[in-house]
Amino acid sequence: MTRKILLEEHEIPEQWYNIVADMPNKPLPPLHPATKQPIGPDALAPLFPMELIKQEVSTDKWIPIPEEVREVYKIWRPTPLYRAYGLEKALDTPAKIYYKYEGVSPSGSHKPNTAVAQAYYNMKEGVKRITTETGAGQWGSALSFACQLFGIECEVYMVKISYHQKPYRKIMMNTWGAKVFASPTDLTQAGRQILGKDPNSPGSLGIAISEAVERAASDDATKYALGSVLNHVLTHQTVIGLEALTQMEKAGDLPDIVVAPFGGGSNFAGISFPFLRLNLEEGKKIRCIASEPASCPKLTRGEFRYDFGDTVGMTPLLPMFTLGHNFVPAPIHAGGLRYHGAGVIVSQLLKDQLIEARAHHQLECFEAGVQFAKAEGIIPAPEANHGIATVIAEAKRCKEEGTSKTILFNLCGHGNFDMSAYENYFEGKLQEHELTKEEITASLAELDTPTI
Amino acid sequence: MTRKILLEEHEIPEQWYNIVADMPNKPLPPLHPATKQPIGPDALAPLFPMELIKQEVSTDKWIPIPEEVREVYKIWRPTPLYRAYGLEKALDTPAKIYYKYEGVSPSGSHKPNTAVAQAYYNMKEGVKRITTETGAGQWGSALSFACQLFGIECEVYMVKISYHQKPYRKIMMNTWGAKVFASPTDLTQAGRQILGKDPNSPGSLGIAISEAVERAASDDATKYALGSVLNHVLTHQTVIGLEALTQMEKAGDLPDIVVAPFGGGSNFAGISFPFLRLNLEEGKKIRCIASEPASCPKLTRGEFRYDFGDTVGMTPLLPMFTLGHNFVPAPIHAGGLRYHGAGVIVSQLLKDQLIEARAHHQLECFEAGVQFAKAEGIIPAPEANHGIATVIAEAKRCKEEGTSKTILFNLCGHGNFDMSAYENYFEGKLQEHELTKEEITASLAELDTPTI
Repeated sequence: MTRKILLEEHEIPEQWYNIVADMPNKPLPPLHPATKQPIGPDALAPLFPMELIKQEVSTDKWIPIPEEVREVYKIWRPTPLYRAYGLEKALDTPAKIYYKYEGVSPSGSHKPNTAVAQAYYNMKEGVKRITTETGAGQWGSALSFACQLFGIECEVYMVKISYHQKPYRKIMMNTWGAKVFASPTDLTQAGRQILGKDPNSPGSLGIAISEAVERAASDDATKYALGSVLNHVLTHQTVIGLEALTQMEKAGDLPDIVVAPFGGGSNFAGISFPFLRLNLEEGKKIRCIASEPASCPKLTRGEFRYDFGDTVGMTPLLPMFTLGHNFVPAPIHAGGLRYHGAGVIVSQLLKDQLIEARAHHQLECFEAGVQFAKAEGIIPAPEANHGIATVIAEAKRCKEEGTSKTILFNLCGHGNFDMSAYENYFEGKLQEHELTKEEITASLAELDTPTI
Repeated sequence: MTRKILLEEHEIPEQWYNIVADMPNKPLPPLHPATKQPIGPDALAPLFPMELIKQEVSTDKWIPIPEEVREVYKIWRPTPLYRAYGLEKALDTPAKIYYKYEGVSPSGSHKPNTAVAQAYYNMKEGVKRITTETGAGQWGSALSFACQLFGIECEVYMVKISYHQKPYRKIMMNTWGAKVFASPTDLTQAGRQILGKDPNSPGSLGIAISEAVERAASDDATKYALGSVLNHVLTHQTVIGLEALTQMEKAGDLPDIVVAPFGGGSNFAGISFPFLRLNLEEGKKIRCIASEPASCPKLTRGEFRYDFGDTVGMTPLLPMFTLGHNFVPAPIHAGGLRYHGAGVIVSQLLKDQLIEARAHHQLECFEAGVQFAKAEGIIPAPEANHGIATVIAEAKRCKEEGTSKTILFNLCGHGNFDMSAYENYFEGKLQEHELTKEEITASLAELDTPTI
């Protein structure tokens, strides 16, 4: 019985897949935050190296993966594709369940797939330092790892409350040589402004973004990096789905359903876009389902309109499914999914009904995660548990209907750094925030950004 | 450039290697703790299932790995063999460095290799519950994982001070369904006795062993499991070296030097015994080096004599290199290496000068670990850092001497649960305990166990 379908290093994809080339309706352009007029790639030049800006606006279907990036990918790629025999048995389902396991990367999630690419292009263009923000620390640690390997300094602005509550991710970043600051800091104007008003500010992702962006914009040798949402980030992650497609073919199978957790979209895009290509190109009917938290349901209950990527309103306006950039999600443990908006490409695909979305409550997700850990042996990250909840729901439906579907999902990371979340779950301390219609309406009503 | 040498699942070994068959001098028999007369396998029957007792005293060269065990191994095995191009470059050494990475297992170390086998044999013989002790938690979590997969209850007696200081390993065990008790408990006579004297006892590994053993001995459906030292445990770990040998052959290479950290011996045995076989059978001259902490140097500064396996003196007397069963190692962060004695087989091999040993100070080990993390991307467990320190010393010697040796080491686990140790290192808080000759002499002078 083959449990893992493995690939050799030479089977790491040589190109990323850019779904924009195949989209029936292309994404709408970003707008300038002040003038609300469409902006061109030049506006991004202070923050990103030119090659990444080109990728951000590219309509090329395939983007070559540089050999140096593939060399670093070899540290953990190709990642294994598992047949979930244990979970199938535990659910007593006729469904066949597969999962791609991205937790084998050194930082423990799928994030290094784009971090390595971004660090590489920055290095090639002579950038000496990359700044970024991080909440729980998945993205910050991935970028620290990547920068270390390409000899670039990494400065991470970590939300102050996380900095103190989750010290282990910070130490991980330090081990890879990154400087980690508790944001707000007194190193930036944005930080000093916040601290001037409230010296005890616990920080927020919005503030941390402002600090990282300000630092990059004020120094030619410093650029900024983002871990999700943007087109080039989503494209880099397609290495996951491209490998998975090859592995499914080796298993003599093709998924009917592809599932992934949804925060900003890179995890979901990574596994699903190469399968969506089969729908778009060959007319296949693979259902791709994004699993989001019920407490931050931008895809299932948000509005498709222009909104800011950050809380402060400094970024370009992007056409996205959003709950409003001032929306503050409940403090659920899947920190990576607590984001008010969805990436532009994914939003357009959802608008065009080419993908689906499903929301799950936190308790259902942890129950799913523990069931998975007991059946398969791997303890998933809380973010990944959302995808597992969708998979279990679909597998149960197969049992009820007596149909055998093939389900593939992205196990995007392990839970080694999330044990306190599991502890809260076991101790019955997890709270479910029932988000009312009024709360969502109120958050969206605050927006004065352009509708679509 | 191939970074990882991978194997397919069907290449997981079908037999473990039992080095006893090839040893020129067989291990001396264990003695009864009271009568000091040799004891037979029957004495172990209350604690272990018969199949494991047979393996403990077996002189068969090859022991078949049950198909059910191989099925579970497939969750993470075969593990990758890496060529450490990054470390070689960082050291500017002519040496070729390879490492076998056991941190890909669900619990993050090599421990499940034997935990799965032990849980399986217990299940086959109708055992309902396995008890064990754990300090930092590597072994307890591996056994929890294994028991869950075979439907056996797992009870872990975790040293009370670790239980409170290292809650994440405990939660990991809970996630796999294990019951974890802070030892000393009031569930056992041994625990109640200790608590009667000192209600605030922080516990010790010795006390936890006494509790786990008492619990197993007092109930027919309950057995006990140990994570190192014993012959069958070492034999199960040879799956590491057997895979590594196949992988080295695929790389067209053979190591001149094999290195592993040393606690009780299972990690070292696991990677080195299949290579030692080539020395014993074919006259090869592969140097196998065990890397131990300078603060717990049983191999380099201990005495070869009979001693107890536990602190309390309840176990059979074993012929081992020991610092004395009352020796209390300094509280270094490599918790898995803080054991007073060495497994019987490894002790005999060292006595016969068939293997070597090297001791390293804690600071040197963390320096080595951080250098490795920066060069290779993977953050090692503190235990693994001891092996890396030896590897770096040997690679530097190659550079000085202008020779190119091939070095293989066992990267036995990742450091995800050891970030506070790295934090102490970065903050300059790690202390080095310089163990004096007088301290060792005093500890050994206390012994009234038989000399050899």
